[in-house]
Amino acid sequence: MENVSWFALSLLVGAVSMVLALALMIYVLRKNAGNEKMKQIHDAIKEGALAYLRRQNRTLAVFVLVMAIVLGAVTSFLKGTTMGFAMAIAYALGSACTTLAAYVGMRAAVEANVRVAAAAQKGLKAAFPVAYYGGAVMGLFVVGISLMGISVLFFVFKVLLGWSDPDAASVVLGFSFGASALALFAKAGGGIYTKTADISADLVGKVELGIAEDDPRNPAVIADNVGDNVGDVAGMGADLTDSYIASVVATMIIGAEIASETLTVLPLTIAAAGLLSSMLALLFVARSIKKSPGRALNLGTFLTCFIFIALLFLVTRFSGLEGNSWLGVFLPTLAGLGAGIVIGLTSDYFTSIEKKPTKTIAEASVTGTAINILMGFSYGLVSIVPPILCIAAATIASWYLARAFGIDPFYGVASAALGMLSIVGTIISADAYGPISDNAKGVAEQSGLGEEVIAVTDMLDAAGNTSKAITKGFAIGSAALTVLALFAAYTHLVDIKTLDLMSPQVIAGVFIGAMMPPLLSAMLILAVSRNSERMIEEIRRQFREIPGLAEGKAKPDYAKCVDIATAGALKELLLPGIVAIVAPALTLVVLGRESLAGFLAGSIVSGIIFALFMANSGGAWDNAKKYIEEGHLGGKGSEAHKAAVVGDTVGDPFKDTAGPSLNTMITVMSLVAEVFAPLLLLMVSR
Amino acid sequence: MENVSWFALSLLVGAVSMVLALALMIYVLRKNAGNEKMKQIHDAIKEGALAYLRRQNRTLAVFVLVMAIVLGAVTSFLKGTTMGFAMAIAYALGSACTTLAAYVGMRAAVEANVRVAAAAQKGLKAAFPVAYYGGAVMGLFVVGISLMGISVLFFVFKVLLGWSDPDAASVVLGFSFGASALALFAKAGGGIYTKTADISADLVGKVELGIAEDDPRNPAVIADNVGDNVGDVAGMGADLTDSYIASVVATMIIGAEIASETLTVLPLTIAAAGLLSSMLALLFVARSIKKSPGRALNLGTFLTCFIFIALLFLVTRFSGLEGNSWLGVFLPTLAGLGAGIVIGLTSDYFTSIEKKPTKTIAEASVTGTAINILMGFSYGLVSIVPPILCIAAATIASWYLARAFGIDPFYGVASAALGMLSIVGTIISADAYGPISDNAKGVAEQSGLGEEVIAVTDMLDAAGNTSKAITKGFAIGSAALTVLALFAAYTHLVDIKTLDLMSPQVIAGVFIGAMMPPLLSAMLILAVSRNSERMIEEIRRQFREIPGLAEGKAKPDYAKCVDIATAGALKELLLPGIVAIVAPALTLVVLGRESLAGFLAGSIVSGIIFALFMANSGGAWDNAKKYIEEGHLGGKGSEAHKAAVVGDTVGDPFKDTAGPSLNTMITVMSLVAEVFAPLLLLMVSR
Repeated sequence: MENVSWFALSLLVGAVSMVLALALMIYVLRKNAGNEKMKQIHDAIKEGALAYLRRQNRTLAVFVLVMAIVLGAVTSFLKGTTMGFAMAIAYALGSACTTLAAYVGMRAAVEANVRVAAAAQKGLKAAFPVAYYGGAVMGLFVVGISLMGISVLFFVFKVLLGWSDPDAASVVLGFSFGASALALFAKAGGGIYTKTADISADLVGKVELGIAEDDPRNPAVIADNVGDNVGDVAGMGADLTDSYIASVVATMIIGAEIASETLTVLPLTIAAAGLLSSMLALLFVARSIKKSPGRALNLGTFLTCFIFIALLFLVTRFSGLEGNSWLGVFLPTLAGLGAGIVIGLTSDYFTSIEKKPTKTIAEASVTGTAINILMGFSYGLVSIVPPILCIAAATIASWYLARAFGIDPFYGVASAALGMLSIVGTIISADAYGPISDNAKGVAEQSGLGEEVIAVTDMLDAAGNTSKAITKGFAIGSAALTVLALFAAYTHLVDIKTLDLMSPQVIAGVFIGAMMPPLLSAMLILAVSRNSERMIEEIRRQFREIPGLAEGKAKPDYAKCVDIATAGALKELLLPGIVAIVAPALTLVVLGRESLAGFLAGSIVSGIIFALFMANSGGAWDNAKKYIEEGHLGGKGSEAHKAAVVGDTVGDPFKDTAGPSLNTMITVMSLVAEVFAPLLLLMVSR
Repeated sequence: MENVSWFALSLLVGAVSMVLALALMIYVLRKNAGNEKMKQIHDAIKEGALAYLRRQNRTLAVFVLVMAIVLGAVTSFLKGTTMGFAMAIAYALGSACTTLAAYVGMRAAVEANVRVAAAAQKGLKAAFPVAYYGGAVMGLFVVGISLMGISVLFFVFKVLLGWSDPDAASVVLGFSFGASALALFAKAGGGIYTKTADISADLVGKVELGIAEDDPRNPAVIADNVGDNVGDVAGMGADLTDSYIASVVATMIIGAEIASETLTVLPLTIAAAGLLSSMLALLFVARSIKKSPGRALNLGTFLTCFIFIALLFLVTRFSGLEGNSWLGVFLPTLAGLGAGIVIGLTSDYFTSIEKKPTKTIAEASVTGTAINILMGFSYGLVSIVPPILCIAAATIASWYLARAFGIDPFYGVASAALGMLSIVGTIISADAYGPISDNAKGVAEQSGLGEEVIAVTDMLDAAGNTSKAITKGFAIGSAALTVLALFAAYTHLVDIKTLDLMSPQVIAGVFIGAMMPPLLSAMLILAVSRNSERMIEEIRRQFREIPGLAEGKAKPDYAKCVDIATAGALKELLLPGIVAIVAPALTLVVLGRESLAGFLAGSIVSGIIFALFMANSGGAWDNAKKYIEEGHLGGKGSEAHKAAVVGDTVGDPFKDTAGPSLNTMITVMSLVAEVFAPLLLLMVSR
């Protein structure tokens, strides 16, 4: 078949990306890892991070095994044993690939932390490339392996085994579902872990004992560093990868359903073009790195976009679509990309330390803690307006642009999601850069490298702020469009032609679905609170029972805190995880398939609202505190600062646990609907 | 026509209710108003409250005049001058009737405050009836005048002028729209007023100066007392009345649209049965009042329900509906009433001082302010689950129960809303009881009546807690069903047969509509913050510039603070008010009528979520503070108490400004859609 050359392209780009990632890993490893004390700290972080990953992966393995068997059995029953076997394999493979990628990425981050701190002794320009390339390992490896996984599976089943497009696309859906299992664990579990450690270390360390954030006497300090790696690097990477794979797969499924081979394969090619753009931009940016670190990050994002637009034009124009119908893919993809950038920039406005909202929150801290909380809460709610208008506009634009050129309108919406996510290699790289710089600062403080070095790491961190905001905007905006695409794929699958919002089942489904994101947010925040209480108890115990700890003469038991965070995170993840899987299934069984469609729609809408609100209010509170710490409004130690610290602590689980987990949760709910709907419908109809 | 006797009934019940309200007013006025100092305080509160009402009504009058002219012009253009004239009159009348009722109710509350305090000197049993009947004035007068207004209008246009049912129902819609104008001002404006005064008085008085909550030296103390009357009594009454009228009118419109005279008139009769039940229950409860005040309030609610169910059976059974189709009205109405009670009881669970959530929040305060905030936030989110499941269940149940007996299913949903709201006379009475007791406590403190008397007023306040929670549950639950009924009426009006949730316009509309409640909440909270800043400045100025004020030798300038709260509240109301009116209109013009339907659906769903979350988290924070003040976890003055005070302050605008205003806002948006859709459609189609 003629499309084999396209497969070769996506396989090739995926492989090159993984090789490049490993090359960058070697680059990082060759850098100087600092003095003896730094190596000790590095070893402790590495040990803690690996301990978490080991335990997470053990639990994940059991979960994946059970789910693979269920999925295989369900599919065998519905579509025959071969298909069932294929689905189970694809599911396990999706989970395994993304787990491996998260491991490699996190490993790179852990190695980079200490080396960035060491390089910071030579100044900003020596330290920046280490942090930048350390983050790029995650970005390139995870996207490369995902693209290869999808391509290989589709190639094997379609070309080698000769299956039909819809069947082969179904197998790839299994891969996506498997990836979402890792995302659920990495994002929600990692999110609980990181905020447990952060809040506990702060509350006992800063508030009760009055010691600095990264003081080595604090037993929770290593757990806190580990948290940045497992929650922020591995978690955010897994979340974006999950959306990325889901958007590619949803577009392929819709393409297969409308029986167009070209449209089924095209998403792979577009994804390959995006990954290629990320790599090219990385090479270009390498030159400008030494000039201005802050600008290099933004240049990376925008350069990726420009190269991608050029490549996108080429691959759609010469995709073999007849007449000018290529425009029906090109323009929606472009609309999605544009919406993603606008969403990112407006998120930046609402959370940047230099803009009005954050400054207003900082000023409100002078009046008191309650006003700081109310202001952050309110601006967080206002911040949802531009992204939601963008998502609405992108949905309408991609729908009509696709239809105008004879492409299925839902394929257009899915292409918009793909457009946002195709540059995800650069996005994840820039995102991982943040926690690496943050951790480098921690290592510098704990190993006593002095104020100057800490100042360099602070500047590194600040340089990544705009990129970080754009990343979060992309993550949430793309999740919205991806889940809309999955929603469309679901309705195709269960044969719903129109979904009447005036029927009581749909209304009830929308109500119940819309209730899920706030409920899951609350469960995750309560999980962090409960887990923190356990850890605070342990920190206090160590200070009470270990003689000489407070004076810095004895070493705390770091491993014990790491252990509490690890065990607690996985335990607390259980309930929200079960709810996210059972609620859509229950809705289907009790109220029927139209209710489930309403459920998905409701959960998308309120999920986006809560995800945006929590991410942005948390970011604004954080920066309001930093603004005061810069010396404004009384500076560190003032009443205003105390109020801002409370705001920051409230915002922590908002922006790093509940907010970002919602993306994953709504993707999981959509995939549950998609995968299990056929069986449950069969049971119901009996 | 045969239905004239039914009209006579609803007119009669409405009139009797108003007379009974005035009789209770005289009962209250005849009670002893206390010593000279109490009379002074009473005069100051009365003056402040009347000043607020005067200014509110002046602004409202301009607003209503403009809107009446626009409405009249629009309707003239569409349906002829007579109809336009009728609509404008009905609109002005709706606004005037509810304004008068709010005035009478608030006046009764102001008179009752001081007399409850005076009676408290003789003990709990002497004080309770004064507070109870003081609240009942509001409940009975406002519901009576609303019922009369609707009945008279419908009687004049249908029976005297011989208009068709749909035309006469449209005129009544104008009445409902007019009532919502007052509700918007009273609830949102009053909500901003009351929380401005409360937060300012607390932050400067309690926190900066360390004086008691109702210390007469605080310049904001009278404004705070006034706020309880204008925000909590007049505001909550207006909100419930607005929903009440809207539910009656929406049911009538659907009845008229399906061309059944019986079903058009039946809602009036059901409403009359509900009001009659409220009055009968009130008379019965009068006997048990002297035994146990707390139980008397609950008995009032449940007795009203039982009498109403009996009367409901009679009026539906003998309504003249053929065969057993009366069951298609009876059962949905019952389902609505049941859902309202369950919602109320679950709200009670999440906010009661004796239940686990509030205690957990109080215990979290020991760990720190941030954890208190996170816990209150999380439990507030969890608390939305039972009410939303109830609303979903009531929607499905009323739909199918109606259809099973041959009644239009949307008529069933509207009947469920009517079922919840028909006992609103008792609900508003119990609700107004709360702030009256609260204010009595304030008067007792300011006039130095001693600890014992204050303790009695505290117990009065506590007795109303369950009733208050049930009230809020009813208010939000019934608003949800009412707006669903309005939504149905809108789709009838613009001739939408099915509303496809898979069309991009509907999806975009849902997204934009769902964004409105969080946006409006944020605007209202920011309004409170801004207004509080102005007032705090003024309080500090008075303490700085008035010699002898801090020592209690000079009187503060109470009027100045009242003035700031008044002017600020009305000014700050402008923007959210405009947004609530313009956003649906803009959606219609830019995206079309299907988008607007999606917009309404989205705003209902997220409106309910945010209204419930804010009401319940605010209530829980408040009671967590009270729990600590009772002497638990360190009691007053402990670190835990300080943390709980911050939580309470954050919760104040949640539960008393933004949360309850959302009901009104979504009703206003629905009515805008309903009233202006025809004209705007005409403009668009050109």
